[in-house]
Amino acid sequence: MNTINKLTEIFSKFPGIGPRQSKRFVYFLLTRNNGSLEELSKLILELKKEVTVCESCQRFFPKTSQSKICDVCTDKNRENGMLMVVERDADFENIEKSGAFGGKYFILGGKVPILEKNPEQKIRVTELKERVQDKNLKEIVLALSVSPDGENTEKYVRELLSPIVEKKKIKISTLGRGLSTGIELEYPDSETLKNAFKNRT
Amino acid sequence: MNTINKLTEIFSKFPGIGPRQSKRFVYFLLTRNNGSLEELSKLILELKKEVTVCESCQRFFPKTSQSKICDVCTDKNRENGMLMVVERDADFENIEKSGAFGGKYFILGGKVPILEKNPEQKIRVTELKERVQDKNLKEIVLALSVSPDGENTEKYVRELLSPIVEKKKIKISTLGRGLSTGIELEYPDSETLKNAFKNRT
Amino acid sequence: MNTINKLTEIFSKFPGIGPRQSKRFVYFLLTRNNGSLEELSKLILELKKEVTVCESCQRFFPKTSQSKICDVCTDKNRENGMLMVVERDADFENIEKSGAFGGKYFILGGKVPILEKNPEQKIRVTELKERVQDKNLKEIVLALSVSPDGENTEKYVRELLSPIVEKKKIKISTLGRGLSTGIELEYPDSETLKNAFKNRT
Amino acid sequence: MNTINKLTEIFSKFPGIGPRQSKRFVYFLLTRNNGSLEELSKLILELKKEVTVCESCQRFFPKTSQSKICDVCTDKNRENGMLMVVERDADFENIEKSGAFGGKYFILGGKVPILEKNPEQKIRVTELKERVQDKNLKEIVLALSVSPDGENTEKYVRELLSPIVEKKKIKISTLGRGLSTGIELEYPDSETLKNAFKNRT
Repeated sequence: MNTINKLTEIFSKFPGIGPRQSKRFVYFLLTRNNGSLEELSKLILELKKEVTVCESCQRFFPKTSQSKICDVCTDKNRENGMLMVVERDADFENIEKSGAFGGKYFILGGKVPILEKNPEQKIRVTELKERVQDKNLKEIVLALSVSPDGENTEKYVRELLSPIVEKKKIKISTLGRGLSTGIELEYPDSETLKNAFKNRT
Repeated sequence: MNTINKLTEIFSKFPGIGPRQSKRFVYFLLTRNNGSLEELSKLILELKKEVTVCESCQRFFPKTSQSKICDVCTDKNRENGMLMVVERDADFENIEKSGAFGGKYFILGGKVPILEKNPEQKIRVTELKERVQDKNLKEIVLALSVSPDGENTEKYVRELLSPIVEKKKIKISTLGRGLSTGIELEYPDSETLKNAFKNRT
Repeated sequence: MNTINKLTEIFSKFPGIGPRQSKRFVYFLLTRNNGSLEELSKLILELKKEVTVCESCQRFFPKTSQSKICDVCTDKNRENGMLMVVERDADFENIEKSGAFGGKYFILGGKVPILEKNPEQKIRVTELKERVQDKNLKEIVLALSVSPDGENTEKYVRELLSPIVEKKKIKISTLGRGLSTGIELEYPDSETLKNAFKNRT
Repeated sequence: MNTINKLTEIFSKFPGIGPRQSKRFVYFLLTRNNGSLEELSKLILELKKEVTVCESCQRFFPKTSQSKICDVCTDKNRENGMLMVVERDADFENIEKSGAFGGKYFILGGKVPILEKNPEQKIRVTELKERVQDKNLKEIVLALSVSPDGENTEKYVRELLSPIVEKKKIKISTLGRGLSTGIELEYPDSETLKNAFKNRT
């Protein structure tokens, strides 16, 4: 298989990309100048060397110093007592951008699908248990998908942490359910309406 | 203008219907038998005769008895102390179908757009003020669109009712904001995330 | 079942309309004034009285005179030698609006699905055979859907008419296949490309 | 700017990719193993070394031999007398896959937008004029987008080649316009219908 086809195949595995668009990526690259391709090639090669996983929150962050802990985890202006548990780095980024939360984070690395036999292979069980040993911790906020798999993950994490949080008197909370921006009352499902009514303010 | 064109024009004003689809409606009717057309014609003529507006909640309901009050408003198994204010009949139907609420309703009849000069022409101001005089009333739940116009309506209604509710010690609440069913944390806007965090449980 | 529900059910059978939108139609009607509803009711009742099927082309047309033949069929400025066969009235309207054709039309009333056992119940076989007896006729243009069912209809019509057209030396043609407006060459299917190449000009 | 952000910016310039998806690409890469990233990095670097532009048709092709001419241009089973002019490599691929054409190709490299002042900077003018000097050439088939810019390109190319084709008696044709696969006659625009009628068969 030639370079065009090999690259097409690799791009077709990128999230959300089909065979036609991946071929278009290759033709797009062919129209770039050598400098651009060299830069892209170099950045991809350096990506994992320059990016590391934070030993505390498990998110990807640029290795800028010798530190093994990311800038969010070491930020002294953040509440040490609050830990928000999210599924993926992209969730962290969106929440962080919103300014809705001023505490620390933990990236699970995924979800636990319903009927999953080996949950500990789907999410960072050991790292999470280690992380919640933090003596400052007062509340763990579960910020997971509102879906059957998300709810299964929540149930699994609550059980997993239950001995620790009971002993250390840490509260576990879940993000509030209700009406999202843009909703008209003609459309939401029963579950959302029930939560919106229960959580009325 | 002939009958085909007149009907096409009328159907094109139906909600969500453009000129092409409205023409298709007319051709569809032309393929129906006479009995079907007579039934449709009769039902449309009878609609407003057989349907009336409930004097209490202002929603449309079938005139089955001599009563001027609908079956929901007269239902003794419903909580008289709770009144949910919605914009339209379709909102009432969706909430009722969900089983999320067991009190009474009031249909505003619309929204108050931002900068609207005559809000009392957009929503049922007199009927609402009258309705909240009910001596049993303990809480008014505002179930309005989560949008700028919905929020403007909420503000207007709260001000409108403020003298009455203060005097009678009636609580006014709003449906809870937060994550709706199906959401992944990568996507919600800042407002929704802030509410979801504030309303965590 | 009450009037609201009966009307909702009828509207839900209109082409392209689901249960939610059909309910919205009923609420829309409830907000109209009595005069509007009376007009709509009357027009629906009159529709089939004021509209008739042209004995020549079989399309719906307003009964304006005593004539049983529509204005297009009696138009002396149109070519009598050309007859375009379409599936539905909406096809006739779109072609007529385009100004692409200056002859006469015949509305088949539908398609012959593949494997259909009774094609003569799906399209107007008798009326078409009668229509092509016209002594002025020189060419029949088949303007049918470009789909398996459309092609099956074409095959069936060609066979049906073959004894007549051979005897009377009438040509049967099909609308040209090729590239439609808006196409980029990266996208069309093989069949369209083959036709576009064959019909290059 | 760190590696994550730099790569996100580069991916966001890929065709059809926005900032959110480009970030997702970077996170996707971070979850790949080192071997996969090294392979991707290497392929991108090699792409332009291993792929070259055919001196005859101007399309990208893998440098497998010492030849500066691609396998399609050197294929002896193809008609030398026919040359199909397309805008981009992706168009060539789709037509080639369809099996609709058995001659040679020329890739223009783009379109000439309406009102473009320097058309020779948008498409391969010199290479095309050179290519059509081929003594075997009998017909040039223009296979361009069916859009205002595509039609402008066609007009420009016809004028550009007019002295050569007149002298050498080469025919210039355009792919046939008409109904594409899947069309129902209710929908096409006037232009398509006019072409479909003119090109009826």
